[in-house]
Amino acid sequence: MKQAVHILSISTRGQALYEFTAAIGEWLRLQNIHTGLITVFCRHTSASLLIQENADPTVRRDLKAYFSRIAPEGGPYEHDSEGSDDMPAHLKTALTQVQLSIPVVNGNLALGTWQGVYLFEHRDRAHRREVVLHLIGE
Amino acid sequence: MKQAVHILSISTRGQALYEFTAAIGEWLRLQNIHTGLITVFCRHTSASLLIQENADPTVRRDLKAYFSRIAPEGGPYEHDSEGSDDMPAHLKTALTQVQLSIPVVNGNLALGTWQGVYLFEHRDRAHRREVVLHLIGE
Amino acid sequence: MKQAVHILSISTRGQALYEFTAAIGEWLRLQNIHTGLITVFCRHTSASLLIQENADPTVRRDLKAYFSRIAPEGGPYEHDSEGSDDMPAHLKTALTQVQLSIPVVNGNLALGTWQGVYLFEHRDRAHRREVVLHLIGE
Repeated sequence: MKQAVHILSISTRGQALYEFTAAIGEWLRLQNIHTGLITVFCRHTSASLLIQENADPTVRRDLKAYFSRIAPEGGPYEHDSEGSDDMPAHLKTALTQVQLSIPVVNGNLALGTWQGVYLFEHRDRAHRREVVLHLIGE
Repeated sequence: MKQAVHILSISTRGQALYEFTAAIGEWLRLQNIHTGLITVFCRHTSASLLIQENADPTVRRDLKAYFSRIAPEGGPYEHDSEGSDDMPAHLKTALTQVQLSIPVVNGNLALGTWQGVYLFEHRDRAHRREVVLHLIGE
Repeated sequence: MKQAVHILSISTRGQALYEFTAAIGEWLRLQNIHTGLITVFCRHTSASLLIQENADPTVRRDLKAYFSRIAPEGGPYEHDSEGSDDMPAHLKTALTQVQLSIPVVNGNLALGTWQGVYLFEHRDRAHRREVVLHLIGE
């Protein structure tokens, strides 16, 4: 049994879902693991992770619009010192995930046909986001 | 340390929570693992996973009704080509989880007394859903 | 490769976010693991886990108030026999997480600078909550 750790850096340019399934897969292939578990961990409280449909881009636009409706700017928030998009960003992060673990089967991520892995950026300004990958298997 | 992988196929008949705790437990017992970690991964973007109360069935009915209130059909969605229950299904999946990892202690899932593992089907039509189980331990 | 399991008991006094990052870190340091994966699992259906900002306490107050707005008491719930805060507690648990896995890198939790691990208590009365820690690594 062996382990490997890697940090991905993902550049974002405003609120949207950024797919990085391919970056995980490329790193995974270098590790020579047939069966295992890969954990994806987002080191932020205003960006999160989501596995969602990778086919029709309107799904991602609807997801972004939906979360802005249920966690709107200008809500009755105490915490407003870091910009009007900050507290909604924390709420959207709480409603989604900062960690995903995906089984590795036959050397590949065991994702379904329509599943892609996304970083969900909740801030308006450009950011560099760090995502830790941990792999265990053999 | 050893690993095992298994795929469960779960038949659904419309929007509801379908418990499959027993199916996970049965497979687990065959693996002869005393201590470990089992990961449950749903390979879909319109069905999700939830650990919830396994006692009173009204809790599951309330959960289903609640998610239909906060992610209603007929919302202002761009993505509507796959039926009126499709975009709400993606939203409900995003609001819940597609992956759960549960420690294995003394050969059993370390669930609390009132916790059951459910597939949360978000589409109206009957489906066959694939859930990947990954176990590591010894 | 080795494993360890531990159960934390967390006392709560009403609805709020209770940080226990330090308790996880203290146990982790005793295990002498350089690289690994730690899984935190909450054995309840009316309390959940959240990784959130550990700096400004107004973020936690806003999180608590927000979840009470979107999963209010007095909603049209069938399940009301265990008190008016019970069904909202199940909904808030479903909307957040009962399990988190965090990579261990260089002997430490790979959390971001502003990330803390919280138990999110959703019931009004005082409770003792059990959180299972599972660690694998070497």
